[in-house]
Amino acid sequence: MAEVRTQIADEAPTRQQDTTSLAIAQRSLRDPAITYPLWPPLTDGCPRTSTPEIQYPVDVAFDLDHVDRLAFGVPDAPDIRHWSPLLPPLVPKLDLGVGRTPLLEVPDLAKYAGLDRDELYIKDETRNPTWSHKDRLNLVTTSAALLTDAPGIVVASSGNHGASAAAFAAAAGLPCVVVTSTGSPPAVTRFLLSYGAAVVGVPVEMRWPVVRQIVERLGYHPVSNLTRTHTGHGFGPEGYKTIAFETYVQLGHRVPSAMFVPTGYGEMLFGIYKGFDELRELGITSVMPRLFACEPAARAPLARALAEGKDAIEVERKHTVADAIASPVSGYRGVLAVRGSHGKATPVSDERILDAHRQMARSGFWHEVSSAAGLASLRHEIQHGGAFEGPVVFVSTSCGFKSMDLDDRPLPAVDGSWAAVSAELRAQGIALT
Amino acid sequence: MAEVRTQIADEAPTRQQDTTSLAIAQRSLRDPAITYPLWPPLTDGCPRTSTPEIQYPVDVAFDLDHVDRLAFGVPDAPDIRHWSPLLPPLVPKLDLGVGRTPLLEVPDLAKYAGLDRDELYIKDETRNPTWSHKDRLNLVTTSAALLTDAPGIVVASSGNHGASAAAFAAAAGLPCVVVTSTGSPPAVTRFLLSYGAAVVGVPVEMRWPVVRQIVERLGYHPVSNLTRTHTGHGFGPEGYKTIAFETYVQLGHRVPSAMFVPTGYGEMLFGIYKGFDELRELGITSVMPRLFACEPAARAPLARALAEGKDAIEVERKHTVADAIASPVSGYRGVLAVRGSHGKATPVSDERILDAHRQMARSGFWHEVSSAAGLASLRHEIQHGGAFEGPVVFVSTSCGFKSMDLDDRPLPAVDGSWAAVSAELRAQGIALT
Repeated sequence: MAEVRTQIADEAPTRQQDTTSLAIAQRSLRDPAITYPLWPPLTDGCPRTSTPEIQYPVDVAFDLDHVDRLAFGVPDAPDIRHWSPLLPPLVPKLDLGVGRTPLLEVPDLAKYAGLDRDELYIKDETRNPTWSHKDRLNLVTTSAALLTDAPGIVVASSGNHGASAAAFAAAAGLPCVVVTSTGSPPAVTRFLLSYGAAVVGVPVEMRWPVVRQIVERLGYHPVSNLTRTHTGHGFGPEGYKTIAFETYVQLGHRVPSAMFVPTGYGEMLFGIYKGFDELRELGITSVMPRLFACEPAARAPLARALAEGKDAIEVERKHTVADAIASPVSGYRGVLAVRGSHGKATPVSDERILDAHRQMARSGFWHEVSSAAGLASLRHEIQHGGAFEGPVVFVSTSCGFKSMDLDDRPLPAVDGSWAAVSAELRAQGIALT
Repeated sequence: MAEVRTQIADEAPTRQQDTTSLAIAQRSLRDPAITYPLWPPLTDGCPRTSTPEIQYPVDVAFDLDHVDRLAFGVPDAPDIRHWSPLLPPLVPKLDLGVGRTPLLEVPDLAKYAGLDRDELYIKDETRNPTWSHKDRLNLVTTSAALLTDAPGIVVASSGNHGASAAAFAAAAGLPCVVVTSTGSPPAVTRFLLSYGAAVVGVPVEMRWPVVRQIVERLGYHPVSNLTRTHTGHGFGPEGYKTIAFETYVQLGHRVPSAMFVPTGYGEMLFGIYKGFDELRELGITSVMPRLFACEPAARAPLARALAEGKDAIEVERKHTVADAIASPVSGYRGVLAVRGSHGKATPVSDERILDAHRQMARSGFWHEVSSAAGLASLRHEIQHGGAFEGPVVFVSTSCGFKSMDLDDRPLPAVDGSWAAVSAELRAQGIALT
């Protein structure tokens, strides 16, 4: 360890950074014996193990021997910088107040899911700076962009990831290019533009090639994927580890029995897995929650990769209402998270996702449609014989505004007379006694 | 005190409630010597002091002698129920994770405002369950609706208040009627419908009369105003006190020198004032921050009431971009907060609000247009000779989606070739070297 640290220290950027990070190297996920210096971030996956068919991501190795285990004894979820020893180096000025999101018990939704006791929790990731989980990733990746003196940030996204990257780029004072696909939700497009990002819509299959051009021609730092199967930014999932750390603290220093995670490329799923794995490696916990990868059934590349024993696959771009997690490829991270946690990929139909979405709103959580994939999968599992011992958590990823184009009911307008008002209320199901 | 408590205890509702509340009575804001039992909440203002021209609100009196001062020594903003001794009785099942919002230092915005040092903070109220400050009020008022066995909740709102009331009504399992005005932002209307509320749009001047009909005919609990000048729900502003408590804790157990608060009817302004006043009464602090009421100049009823030495006035419904704080009347609460804190009403033009709004987004905070009234007022004050010693805080109230209809730029779509992409990026100001 000590030898690697010295080597990295020589190459570490000198810009203002949080100096508490214990990150020491990048490491191939395909073969953890293969390591690379911490800088620069490998945004094309692991060069030594990737093949033309399948590309393998890297993750970040930490000097776990020097982690202060007492950090996990905090009574409530702390500021995200509390976890900086286990994160890649952060730039303090980028702190928009990431994480520390509520974990709330939801007995009504437990009944809906069919849990025979009440211990179901929602991890409400809508409570982040841009109202989605992606802020955890972008805090880390935008820090990396600043620390490598990149002239800008580029991201392919038609949703939360792009908006979050645009916000952090704004906070960093860096230009940001968001490559969206034509046909992305109008609410999100305006969201992106408001942060001052440059936005171009291109045909969906051109997004990753255009990102690569911007990386190669302009030297921009890519914070989304560049490869055929998904590898993404090597540092990004480390940000999601904090969901595991917070959940452990918020459950009163316990791990859940199972966690249901809306899954697109599997970066959050892997980050949560790695967080719980580090808790175990540090001797703080002894058990790993079972992780359920909740994909829309119309695509479900991870479920198919697992079923076929493959490390990553491509699937047809079939339509689904869960656009934020509608991925045409999987990545190796998802395979590691599901296998390593004795979890499961649980594809779920659009119909079930929409039903869970409606149910969440009727309990006070009007979140993005894709956010309901976790609850929908849990319900599906229980209806098909699944049983859980101990607290179950589902992650909700983003707020309802992100998928607002789904609902275009016109506003019922009346003249204000009681006859007209009461007729309208009766039509909407209000009892008039 | 003891006598009053016994009297109230006899009348207190018996439903499941948080038993730690030290609320003992309702009290006229016009004449604090006039008290009423705690139940039922007076939603028509103070019956004894109100006149046909001006109605006076009530607030809630607490048994401050029994408050544990150590509760304010917490190291970081706690769960809102931590403050329940100083809140009206809450119903625990309604906890959607209200409050505990970040207080973030914003040096770039300090420069924009003209502060010659860096200590400017944003209190980011977008991080609430329905992404606005209104959740603090609705937690309290929906609890009151449940504790008085109301058959439903009714609210006049075309925005945050209605959405928040709808969410809490959903969590409470109560029907909710939202009376909006025709022409409210489409994003917000859909938001309301998603929680399962019944929504009727009526001409704007008919909103309060229609609410009254629903109260009188259906027995619904009103959580917005019924009177000519604003009184609102007597319990509501108590929820906003927690902004003061949290700010005190988050500043490292200090009070700010000044706080800039977007102001419509003045409920939040008064709640913050009352929170700091209780801190002082409890002997925890010795100073009161100066409170700045930030109204859109097009209306600014509070500024006019103060200038004319009146307790509340009505103004013309002139158009402003700050629709969430575009009030046609003021209320006596605002007068008390500004006078009691040696503060000021600082009306600010739409142009300045939009400029501050853009600036906030370019720093990573894409919030509702009205949210920028605080920063815009601060900048205006400094440009006109205002000076501050010690930390300054501005409150941002709600997320950018709420005023999304302001920006309808079409998405720039190109074919994905580098020639087309680079031309579009250049047009959007990206340097192509």
